[in-house]
Amino acid sequence: MTTQSQAREVRDFTANDARIQSLLEHVRPLMDLTALSALAVWDQSTAMPRGAGVVHMHQAATLQSILHDRQTDPRLGAILDELETVIASDAFNDSDRALVRETRLSYDRACKLPRPFVEETSRVRSASFNAWIEAREKNDFKIFAPWLQRTIALQRELADYYGYAETRYDALLDTYEPGLTTSRVEQLFAPVRTASTALLRRIQDSGRVVDTSSVTGTFAIAQQEELCNRILRTIGYDFNRGYLSRSEHPFTISFGSPYDVRLTTRYEEQYLPMTLMAVIHEGGHGLYEQGIAETLSRTPLAGGVSLGIHESQSRLWENLLARSHAFWQGHYSGLRETFPTQFEHVDLDTYVRALNQVQPSLIRVKADEITYNLHIMIRFEIEKELINGNVAVESLPELWNARYREYLGISASNEVDGVLQDMHWTNGFGYFPTYTLGNLYAAQITHTLRRSFPDFDARLSSGDTSFVLNWLRENIHQYGGIYRPDDLIKQATGEVLNSQYFISYITEKFGKLYGLTEA
Amino acid sequence: MTTQSQAREVRDFTANDARIQSLLEHVRPLMDLTALSALAVWDQSTAMPRGAGVVHMHQAATLQSILHDRQTDPRLGAILDELETVIASDAFNDSDRALVRETRLSYDRACKLPRPFVEETSRVRSASFNAWIEAREKNDFKIFAPWLQRTIALQRELADYYGYAETRYDALLDTYEPGLTTSRVEQLFAPVRTASTALLRRIQDSGRVVDTSSVTGTFAIAQQEELCNRILRTIGYDFNRGYLSRSEHPFTISFGSPYDVRLTTRYEEQYLPMTLMAVIHEGGHGLYEQGIAETLSRTPLAGGVSLGIHESQSRLWENLLARSHAFWQGHYSGLRETFPTQFEHVDLDTYVRALNQVQPSLIRVKADEITYNLHIMIRFEIEKELINGNVAVESLPELWNARYREYLGISASNEVDGVLQDMHWTNGFGYFPTYTLGNLYAAQITHTLRRSFPDFDARLSSGDTSFVLNWLRENIHQYGGIYRPDDLIKQATGEVLNSQYFISYITEKFGKLYGLTEA
Repeated sequence: MTTQSQAREVRDFTANDARIQSLLEHVRPLMDLTALSALAVWDQSTAMPRGAGVVHMHQAATLQSILHDRQTDPRLGAILDELETVIASDAFNDSDRALVRETRLSYDRACKLPRPFVEETSRVRSASFNAWIEAREKNDFKIFAPWLQRTIALQRELADYYGYAETRYDALLDTYEPGLTTSRVEQLFAPVRTASTALLRRIQDSGRVVDTSSVTGTFAIAQQEELCNRILRTIGYDFNRGYLSRSEHPFTISFGSPYDVRLTTRYEEQYLPMTLMAVIHEGGHGLYEQGIAETLSRTPLAGGVSLGIHESQSRLWENLLARSHAFWQGHYSGLRETFPTQFEHVDLDTYVRALNQVQPSLIRVKADEITYNLHIMIRFEIEKELINGNVAVESLPELWNARYREYLGISASNEVDGVLQDMHWTNGFGYFPTYTLGNLYAAQITHTLRRSFPDFDARLSSGDTSFVLNWLRENIHQYGGIYRPDDLIKQATGEVLNSQYFISYITEKFGKLYGLTEA
Repeated sequence: MTTQSQAREVRDFTANDARIQSLLEHVRPLMDLTALSALAVWDQSTAMPRGAGVVHMHQAATLQSILHDRQTDPRLGAILDELETVIASDAFNDSDRALVRETRLSYDRACKLPRPFVEETSRVRSASFNAWIEAREKNDFKIFAPWLQRTIALQRELADYYGYAETRYDALLDTYEPGLTTSRVEQLFAPVRTASTALLRRIQDSGRVVDTSSVTGTFAIAQQEELCNRILRTIGYDFNRGYLSRSEHPFTISFGSPYDVRLTTRYEEQYLPMTLMAVIHEGGHGLYEQGIAETLSRTPLAGGVSLGIHESQSRLWENLLARSHAFWQGHYSGLRETFPTQFEHVDLDTYVRALNQVQPSLIRVKADEITYNLHIMIRFEIEKELINGNVAVESLPELWNARYREYLGISASNEVDGVLQDMHWTNGFGYFPTYTLGNLYAAQITHTLRRSFPDFDARLSSGDTSFVLNWLRENIHQYGGIYRPDDLIKQATGEVLNSQYFISYITEKFGKLYGLTEA
C-alpha cells in the first residue's frame, strides 16, 4: 500500500444543512475582516510610507476591535452549540467537522479575552515593535527591555486566560502548533541536540574547509530577481495567484484563499544564497497556501494547519530539495546562464558544497542545517524561563550570550547580533520551536517521498519537481486546516512526528559532504 | 488688504465638550474603515495578483456592509440631533461645525439607502468594471451595454433616494461637488465652450504647426522615474508621507490623514509629457492632501473638500505652472541633465511650445488645455441625457461620435477610443464636470496668486515654487473639508467661481504662443 492511497478528497461544506450554512454566513465576513487585517500588514511591510505609522495603528486597532466583537457574537456560540450535538453523524463530512472545531476554538479563545486586554495587547505590540527598531538602531537593549517586560506580563496573562495543563508556556505553544506542549518539545529536541552537537564537533575536527568563493562576490540584483522568479515558476508557484515583492524581511502572506498568496524577499548583492534560498523557502510556504482546496476559501480552514507544518513545506523546498546535489543537477545550467562570469570555472560539486557549509554563527537566519536548530533551542530555553520562571529581563543579554557559548561556542560582541536579532519577541512567545518542528516534519515527509519514489534523486536531477509538488498537494496542501497536525502527518507518513528522520538525514548528508567516517 | 490676511487658523475640535468628543468617538472608527476600504482599492490597483479578484470583491462587500451599519447607527443620529441645537453658539468653532455638518450629510445619505440597494450597487460596480475591461479588450460596446444600463437605473434610483430640486442629475453632481446643479454647470460651461471653440478655430486657421519632436522619441523609464521623483521633491511633496508608485491609470490616494498620501503613474517611453505632466498633476493632488491640518485626521474633514477644488490643485500645478515658460526657466537645466542627448539641440522656447500643442484629439487624457473642456462638455451633455432623458444605451456609440464631430470635428473609428475610453461610467455619473470646474478654479486661484505676487513669473523662473505652495497651504489646503467649496473659493479669491479667469488665461496664453492677433 502506498501512502498516496490514503489521500482523501476534500469535500465541500454540506450545502443542504441550514446550520452549516448559517455558520458559514457568520464565519465568512469574519475571515474577510481577518484578510483585511492581513492586507494592512502586507501594506505596512511593502508599501507604507515611514510617516504613516500612527494612523495605520489606529486603523488596525479599529479592525481588531470589530473582529473581537464579531468573534464573540453569542449567536455564533449558539450555532456552534447546536451543531456540536449532531456534527459526528454521517450527515456531515470532515470539512464540516473541522469548520465547527476551528470556529469553536477561536470563539472560545476570543470569549476568554476581555476587550481591554485585546486592545492593550494591540497597543503594546505596536509600541514594542517601534522600541525594538530603535533599540537595534542604537544597539541598546535597554530601550527595548521595558516593552519586552510588558509583553512577558501580557503573555502570561494570555496563558492564564486560555488555560493549560502543565505550564503557562504550553498555552502559548498551543496557539502556534495545536496540541504542542513543553514536554513534547523537550522530548523531540533532546536527541536532535545530541546528534547535532556531535556532528558539529566531528565536522570541526575533520579540519575540512569549504570553498564558498563561488557564492560570494557581486550578483547583480536584476539578475537575481530574474533567477528567483524563474525558479519559483519552475517549482510550480502560480504567478496568476501571487508574485514576488520586496520587504525588509522575507515573508509569505495570504488573504483567506489560494487565489492570492504573495511572497517577499530582500536582495543581498554580495552573497547569492541569502536571497536565493530565502526565495525558495518562501516559495515552499507559497506552494502550500496556493495548494489548499478552493472550497475552503473564506473559512478558518483556508490556511496552513499549523506553523510547524507550514515550516515543513518551506524547509523541504529550501533545504531537503534546493540544497541537494540532485536538485542542482537539474538547475545548475540555468544558474550559470544567469551568472556566467561567476560560475564559469565552478563545477557543480563545489557549488553545492558552498551551499552546505557548516559553521557556528551568531545569526539564526544565516545558519546551516545543523546549527540552525541549536539557535532555536537557545530561544526555546530562554522563552520557557521568561514565561514559566523568574528570569529578570535586564539579565537577558548576558543569558543570551552564555547560552550561545554553551551551544555554539561563540557569542556576540554587540546586542544587535545577539538578543536583539529577532523581531518575534515584539509579538509574543512560543513561535520559535515551530521552526525546528518544521525541519523535523520536512525530513519525515521526505523520507516517505523517497519510499514512494525509489528513483527520487534521478527524477529530481532531471529538473522536474512536479512529482514532489503533486504528492505534497495530494497528501498535505489540499487539506488546509481540516486535519490537526498529528493526524495529518500520520495520514501522510504513517506515523506521528519522530526526530529520527531528521537525525538520519543530517548525519548521512553531512557525513558524505565532509567525508566523515562512521564514529 | 492682501488675501493672505483672510486666512484663518484651523482650530482643534473642542476638547471640553462631551458631545463633540462622543461624535468623534463614533466618527473615527468609521473613517478607519473608510481608510481600509481605500487601502483595498490601492492594493487592487498596484499589487493584487490577477487571479484574486473574487475574494477581494467579497472582502470589499463585507467592509461596505459594516460601514453602512455604522453609518446608520441611530446613536450617531441622536448625537447629531443634540449637537445641532447648540452648534451655532460661540462655544464651538468652525471645525466642530463642519464636523457636525459633514457627519449629518453622510448620516442622512446613508439612512436614505436601503441595505439591499447598497449591496446591489457594490456588486454591479464590480461586474460593470469587469465587463468594461472585457469590452475594451474586444472593442465591443455591446459587452458593456447591459451593465451600463443597470448602472443608469441604479443611479436614477440613488438620485430619487437622495432627492433633488430640479433634475435627477443634480443629485449626482451634488455628491462630487457639494451644492453644484445642472443649471450652474451649464451657466459656467457656456462661455467656456464659446471661447474655446473660437480660439481653436483661430489656432487652426493660423496654420502654425508646433514642433513636438523634442518630446517624442525614446525616454528611458528609469530616467523618467528619477526625474519625476526629483520634480515632486522640488515642488514640496513629502516623501516621508507618501511616494510615487505605478499603476495602469495614474491616481492619488490617501487614508484619512496627511501622513499617508500616495501617487501613482504609468510610464510611457515614447512621449515624455504623458508621464511627466501626469506626475505633476498627481503631485498637485498630493500636495493638497499632505497640506490638510493634522488635527482633522480620521474625520470626514481630512480630505479635499470637493472634486472640483481637488482638481484645481492638480490642474494648477500641471497646467498653470508646469506648462508655463517661467516654470521651465527654473527646471529646464535639470531636464536637460536627465536627458542630455534628447535636449542637446532644443531651446527652452521650442520645448515649452511642444508642451502646449493644441490639436483636437480623440482621447480626453491626452488633450491640451483648450480642447480638454470640450471633451468634458460632450460627457456632461451625454450624462444629462442618460440620467434625465430617455436615450437608449444601444445608441451611445453613435451619439458619442456625433458629439465628437460637433465639438471637435473628429470621431473615433473604434469604440475603445470612443465611448469605451473612460472607466468612470462603471462607477456612476456626475464626476466629469468637476474636471472642468477644476480648470476654472485653478485659473481663478492663479489670478489671485498673481495679484498677491506681482513678481510671480520672476519668482517662478527661479525654480523655487515654495511661495505658491505656502499660499495654497494657507488659503486652501489646511482647511480640508471645513469650508464648503463656494465659501472656500470666496475666502481665498474674493468671489465665487467665475469662468472669465480661465477664458482670459487661455486666450492670452495661446494667443501669445500661436502669435494670434486680437480678433
